[in-house]
Amino acid sequence: MNITFNRDNLKGFVDEAEFKALILEIQKAHEAIEKRNGPGAEFTGWVDLPGRIKDSFLADVTKLGREVRKNSDCLVSIGIGGSYLGIRATIEFLGTDRKFPVYYAGQNLSSDGLHDLLDDLKSKKVTVVVISKSGTTTEPAVAFRIIKKFMHKKYSAKELKKRIICVTDEKKGALRKIAEKEGYQTFIIPDDVGGRFSVLTPVGLVPLSIAGVDVKALIAGARLAQSEFSKMDLEKNIAYQYAAARYLLYKKGKAIEVLSSFYPNMFYVAEWWKQLFGESEGKNGQGIFPASLNLTADLHSMGQLMQDGVRNVFETFLIVDKPKYKLTIPSDKDNLDNFNCVAAKDLDFVNKQAYRATAMAHYEGGVSNMTITVSDISATTLGQLYYFFEKAVAISGYLLGVNPFDQPGVEAYKKKMFELLGRK
Amino acid sequence: MNITFNRDNLKGFVDEAEFKALILEIQKAHEAIEKRNGPGAEFTGWVDLPGRIKDSFLADVTKLGREVRKNSDCLVSIGIGGSYLGIRATIEFLGTDRKFPVYYAGQNLSSDGLHDLLDDLKSKKVTVVVISKSGTTTEPAVAFRIIKKFMHKKYSAKELKKRIICVTDEKKGALRKIAEKEGYQTFIIPDDVGGRFSVLTPVGLVPLSIAGVDVKALIAGARLAQSEFSKMDLEKNIAYQYAAARYLLYKKGKAIEVLSSFYPNMFYVAEWWKQLFGESEGKNGQGIFPASLNLTADLHSMGQLMQDGVRNVFETFLIVDKPKYKLTIPSDKDNLDNFNCVAAKDLDFVNKQAYRATAMAHYEGGVSNMTITVSDISATTLGQLYYFFEKAVAISGYLLGVNPFDQPGVEAYKKKMFELLGRK
Repeated sequence: MNITFNRDNLKGFVDEAEFKALILEIQKAHEAIEKRNGPGAEFTGWVDLPGRIKDSFLADVTKLGREVRKNSDCLVSIGIGGSYLGIRATIEFLGTDRKFPVYYAGQNLSSDGLHDLLDDLKSKKVTVVVISKSGTTTEPAVAFRIIKKFMHKKYSAKELKKRIICVTDEKKGALRKIAEKEGYQTFIIPDDVGGRFSVLTPVGLVPLSIAGVDVKALIAGARLAQSEFSKMDLEKNIAYQYAAARYLLYKKGKAIEVLSSFYPNMFYVAEWWKQLFGESEGKNGQGIFPASLNLTADLHSMGQLMQDGVRNVFETFLIVDKPKYKLTIPSDKDNLDNFNCVAAKDLDFVNKQAYRATAMAHYEGGVSNMTITVSDISATTLGQLYYFFEKAVAISGYLLGVNPFDQPGVEAYKKKMFELLGRK
Repeated sequence: MNITFNRDNLKGFVDEAEFKALILEIQKAHEAIEKRNGPGAEFTGWVDLPGRIKDSFLADVTKLGREVRKNSDCLVSIGIGGSYLGIRATIEFLGTDRKFPVYYAGQNLSSDGLHDLLDDLKSKKVTVVVISKSGTTTEPAVAFRIIKKFMHKKYSAKELKKRIICVTDEKKGALRKIAEKEGYQTFIIPDDVGGRFSVLTPVGLVPLSIAGVDVKALIAGARLAQSEFSKMDLEKNIAYQYAAARYLLYKKGKAIEVLSSFYPNMFYVAEWWKQLFGESEGKNGQGIFPASLNLTADLHSMGQLMQDGVRNVFETFLIVDKPKYKLTIPSDKDNLDNFNCVAAKDLDFVNKQAYRATAMAHYEGGVSNMTITVSDISATTLGQLYYFFEKAVAISGYLLGVNPFDQPGVEAYKKKMFELLGRK
């Protein structure tokens, strides 16, 4: 595995006996997930999804990606929630080809953002992927109206059959109907995988393949993780250890989990994580509040509060063992800044010391912390990490006693929104 | 004023009598700030800063900005914490000239980020602003070493006197010494304004002016706000109302404040706000945990938790009355998505309805909320907003009984970091 987990800095906050006392509960949760008979079982298709994806499908999607990159300068990916965050997290984590930009639309209702996007697209050869199970979620539906009109002005109906790709329900829904009427190419969103677990379905794979991500490697990583994290052995299963630690800290009054990473390319991985955990656990008056920090930037901001504020927080560090590039710090003959102590060292050495300093300082300040380390910036590793978190949240949701696979609260806003818009 | 404040959705959570009962406490805080005799008084230079800035200085900085934009293709702004967030917040809020990009460095220790930046800079005419009071904060100091070497390879020593600009202490510190030795142009960081309050000092004004921001308008807005929010009248002073509301909610067990905006250009305003409030209040085991949401994206993510999770949260909406651009939603003869109800409407109409739907749904779900509305996307308005939050956090810090102007906890990490790096 390309992921390791360290919980040394839970010492004094959660002890080993408490982990052991939780084993039976975890076993119950584990069995409910593996046997698909717990709350929300109809949305546990993600559990064996990596193993079920056909290699021929991955080959087809890879080929589609190559073709689109040949006839286009950029991709516009339209979607919100689970049809947005996983895609962006993957692309930003891996740092795909900067000469083939991916733009996002339908993830908000900002006129200024969409105006600037249309402006950028004018001079470019464009392919659009629109992702929506129903086709009636306001944000992507309205963005698609605007972008569809733009594309119809720019291209012939024949050309659009290649340049607009819909990822939607197999049979029903507005987007399915639009695609059939216009003859757009389509891919299917499975019924048994909820939005926030969908990055490894066509929801993620289609736009990611177009962006140049090695989707075979992504799935290969997830398959490894599926096998590794299906073992009911708390000593070895680090996804279960992470779930158990979070639950025990929550029960001791830690209301907030802060995911802290030291790499700007992890920013959207943290956003994806917030959605996964917030939406899965935040219900029935329960759940940890997930927040994220971008370090070391935020050490000079939220760092003060982490060190000295209300002790209702615990922290999870997300570390990359080997970044992509090396960058040597130069020596300076005058040494006016007194940093010749790190001259000739790689910048990442300083970053790792910053992590160690932070973990120690926060621990001493009363913030227990854990560390998830991934070995490198690769699709295989990210596939493992996605599955790690998915399995962990399923266990931790069941420990909490909630259905981690529904989202009744999101409907409250959607309903009010339709009323205010006069939509039937 | 270009800011309004609405607290109707506190009803049932905080009542008017509670506000009134707090007036004496607020008056005490108000006087300590105005008379500069409360805790941390030595760092209250920001209070009358807008009024003290000389118009001749603003004219000089504006001229400098014009000259740099003539001889450069881009700006690299090196700084962290208060020497980063306010600058970026301003540039992204206003959406300055996209043909003159501003790059950020020294705000983290990521080798991949800095590697990509150096790659981008190779083919460009570059000006660098480096901002550090001491010159020995690890992140900007190390980034400046690397970028300085890059610049020395690219330009002659004579040319660098124009192309490297230092914003630093008037007399002491490593960066001051480096600037004097190399003959770089310098600007002064005042002693009586802390980093997180420094966006309206040369820390912000120098890079912002280079980025094309109308710094005269920014300061004009702050001057208006300085006058408006110096009035001890809780009925009229909305900065004090906001401070009071937060304090009352905190005392009732609301541990987390979520700042929710519906505009991607507000993202870094929220980051700046988190630093301002987190670093000012999070000390002595006290303080509200500040988090932010990007709506409507996060309605399909953290929205579930906001609606149904632990009721330890309150929410502050940040709304823009008039965005820059209009964007009409097209009608569709088939109307398969059933959104002809908003055909011919401006996209921002839907965004505003989303805000109303969210505020209602969250209120009904048990999350009290307030709304700060700014009239438009302009430097004048932003200058007002910065001062509004600065004054509010000063009052709320004093209400909490902490010194809102120090940051002892940040030093804990810095000290450990120097030890691990072997720096004397």
